[in-house]
Amino acid sequence: MKILITSGGTTEKIDSVRGITNHSTGKLGKIIAETFLRKGHQVSLVTTENAVKPEPNDNLSIYQISNVASLMESLEPLVKNHDILIHSMAVSDYTPVYMTDFENLKNTKDLGSLLQERNTESKISSNSDYQVLFLKKTPKLISLVKDWNPAIQLIGFKLLVNISKEELISVARASLRKNQAAYIVANDLSQIKGNQHKAYLVSANDAIVLETKDQIAEAIYQKVSKND
Amino acid sequence: MKILITSGGTTEKIDSVRGITNHSTGKLGKIIAETFLRKGHQVSLVTTENAVKPEPNDNLSIYQISNVASLMESLEPLVKNHDILIHSMAVSDYTPVYMTDFENLKNTKDLGSLLQERNTESKISSNSDYQVLFLKKTPKLISLVKDWNPAIQLIGFKLLVNISKEELISVARASLRKNQAAYIVANDLSQIKGNQHKAYLVSANDAIVLETKDQIAEAIYQKVSKND
Repeated sequence: MKILITSGGTTEKIDSVRGITNHSTGKLGKIIAETFLRKGHQVSLVTTENAVKPEPNDNLSIYQISNVASLMESLEPLVKNHDILIHSMAVSDYTPVYMTDFENLKNTKDLGSLLQERNTESKISSNSDYQVLFLKKTPKLISLVKDWNPAIQLIGFKLLVNISKEELISVARASLRKNQAAYIVANDLSQIKGNQHKAYLVSANDAIVLETKDQIAEAIYQKVSKND
Repeated sequence: MKILITSGGTTEKIDSVRGITNHSTGKLGKIIAETFLRKGHQVSLVTTENAVKPEPNDNLSIYQISNVASLMESLEPLVKNHDILIHSMAVSDYTPVYMTDFENLKNTKDLGSLLQERNTESKISSNSDYQVLFLKKTPKLISLVKDWNPAIQLIGFKLLVNISKEELISVARASLRKNQAAYIVANDLSQIKGNQHKAYLVSANDAIVLETKDQIAEAIYQKVSKND
């Protein structure tokens, strides 16, 4: 089985020194990669500069990306020649369009015109007391996976914060259907702390409770190899 | 001599999963710390989770911070009991105030009222095509250093992008005067690549050209120990 895993969090540049980052250490993706490597599988890991990574291994290829655009570019050909995608990366859902100072916003009659503007300076000046940053939604990469490779088995992730178990599972199941995923790992940031990492491995009819990153990795391995 | 060094880049949270980060690997701060440790000095390093760090050393204390507020809190007492501050950290100059969707912006008559709003949700929803993020200037920490400890010797940093040598040195010298720094390390992002790291060590009358991170660290060490 050829396993493709994504981990870490993407960063969308505001200018050459500032960016918007989706926080993710990459720990879970690393443990999932190590689990599959231990069982002798070939693993491709698409990850970021700051994410923690497994030790070098003959069966491990690492692809480093930074933002959603570079992720898309790396991932499309990889999705096409892998059997499984475990997509644990925290992908930016918005990318900067234009940053301007608040005074300029107040003096602009047609606010929609600001969405057409672009910053030309390399480092946006920091003189004004308030700045306004316009952000645009990024393409939903997970929804493209099955277009790229209808046969791939997709395991998606859904991270929410401070919601009920019922709501979390219901949101995960909606994502499962929409993206034709085999499983969604649904987790709540408020229940992730150190070694504790509560999650539900959600399928169409089931939601298995897991308590640690190791358990999550092992449960994904079990499910995926059963379907193999 | 008790040496205080800052390195890495701060992150200001937008919500519990997203943040605005000033990109900095921490490499230069690490090399400066190692230079002073090699010469037998005591070093306190204030840095971030993602920054690279020197190997453990009996003479090295590491303090981890995340955003400007936690940096201020850690730094004030440290500035008071150190002889030298080498402030190479990339500190966020803006921090998020409020994020809302573009439709809400268009429907708001008094735009200034949005600066008073705060997000209450833990993870801001990602349904709208466009979002607007309001940002507020952070306190200029470097300008407070001499208030905290008038006797400390301050080495500041100025990073600009794609400007002439003359402009870079002139901006550095303005910062030197304003913040009562002994030296400003002035560098241009377009001239930092791998091992190459062009910089000017700017004093009131002088600007020494340096070509690598090792040269920058050594030049700071020489200047600082001469003044000792």
